[in-house]
Amino acid sequence: MASAGLSFGNPVFAAYAAYASLVILKMFFVVFFTTYTRFSRGVFANPEDVKGNKGAVARLDHPDVERVRRLHRNDLENIPAFLAVGLLYVLTGPSPGVALWHFRVFTAARCLHTLSYLAAVQPWRALGFGAGLLTTISMAVQVLMAGTL
Amino acid sequence: MASAGLSFGNPVFAAYAAYASLVILKMFFVVFFTTYTRFSRGVFANPEDVKGNKGAVARLDHPDVERVRRLHRNDLENIPAFLAVGLLYVLTGPSPGVALWHFRVFTAARCLHTLSYLAAVQPWRALGFGAGLLTTISMAVQVLMAGTL
Amino acid sequence: MASAGLSFGNPVFAAYAAYASLVILKMFFVVFFTTYTRFSRGVFANPEDVKGNKGAVARLDHPDVERVRRLHRNDLENIPAFLAVGLLYVLTGPSPGVALWHFRVFTAARCLHTLSYLAAVQPWRALGFGAGLLTTISMAVQVLMAGTL
Repeated sequence: MASAGLSFGNPVFAAYAAYASLVILKMFFVVFFTTYTRFSRGVFANPEDVKGNKGAVARLDHPDVERVRRLHRNDLENIPAFLAVGLLYVLTGPSPGVALWHFRVFTAARCLHTLSYLAAVQPWRALGFGAGLLTTISMAVQVLMAGTL
Repeated sequence: MASAGLSFGNPVFAAYAAYASLVILKMFFVVFFTTYTRFSRGVFANPEDVKGNKGAVARLDHPDVERVRRLHRNDLENIPAFLAVGLLYVLTGPSPGVALWHFRVFTAARCLHTLSYLAAVQPWRALGFGAGLLTTISMAVQVLMAGTL
Repeated sequence: MASAGLSFGNPVFAAYAAYASLVILKMFFVVFFTTYTRFSRGVFANPEDVKGNKGAVARLDHPDVERVRRLHRNDLENIPAFLAVGLLYVLTGPSPGVALWHFRVFTAARCLHTLSYLAAVQPWRALGFGAGLLTTISMAVQVLMAGTL
């Protein structure tokens, strides 16, 4: 019998771990993209960031930077919740096939959300956002039913 | 003997899992409330969100939307910390009664915070915020003492 | 043989738990610092916060408050990711010495980031931010390689 707990011998956990780290690395791509956008536009948030950086200014309202920051904030609203719920969901002992698709849909949905936010295209962004949210809600409901209030 | 680890056979873990998913679902209620507020006020953050939506504008400063966003950000400042610390706290093997009340107070406090932020009433909001924070600090200190630096 | 899982008998887990709670308490220091800055400057985000508080105003743009909020947001972008990845990294069974230094560098880096953000000094802030990010990426890559997509 395969392990049902938090070990890499449990295929559901091994999948969760892989997709969790993948989605965190995706979120860190947004961090690097923010830095890139700030340097290419010469727009920084703090006065100490522009010292010795000719032509750069400290402003909080450049539209390109703010777009990346809104996308990043949406990540913060969704990814930590997925990371926590996903781990608890692994411990409910779900069917590996169903669990794997939860993790895959969430990860793909967040990538779609990121790319369509940067490209400013709807309804793809709303679709990615909604699919990720529904996947997390599905896992949260299953964890709630397995737990005891 | 009951299991002391991360399994639904451990009543402390089963309670943590239930309250963790409950508080995440509460946070997602704020997501839906943001969407509702944006649509009812016709105010969106991105130009691509208002295309084909007659009368809607792309603005970042509608007071009703900003209120929900401040509330949501406060959730982000408190709920992921609770989720992480709570799991580690379960593994310190706390008394079930004491642990249960930590989880219940945190969840009730965050619901009080949410409702009183939306209703713009003080000192209830500060009370909900403070009670949630103190509960998390209490668990964090117990985890710190059980761990080794 | 030492336990390799999530128990305080496993020295890698015991270290993770201690540094995780430490870094969360550090993040909560920022919460208290925000409150202190709001009260000392008499600047609050909501109209209901200034009632009966003579001389206080509801404004969203005080530079001292905004600085603490930017620092706090950077915490939210980095600390929950570390908490999730660190736990999964413990389960990959890393060498205790290597693991311990990951946790220590991350925690020290975030403290450096916090202090240099408040003191408005560069490049220390960028250094603290970068060191924390690289530590988390290192763990995320190791978790990804141990998992199965």
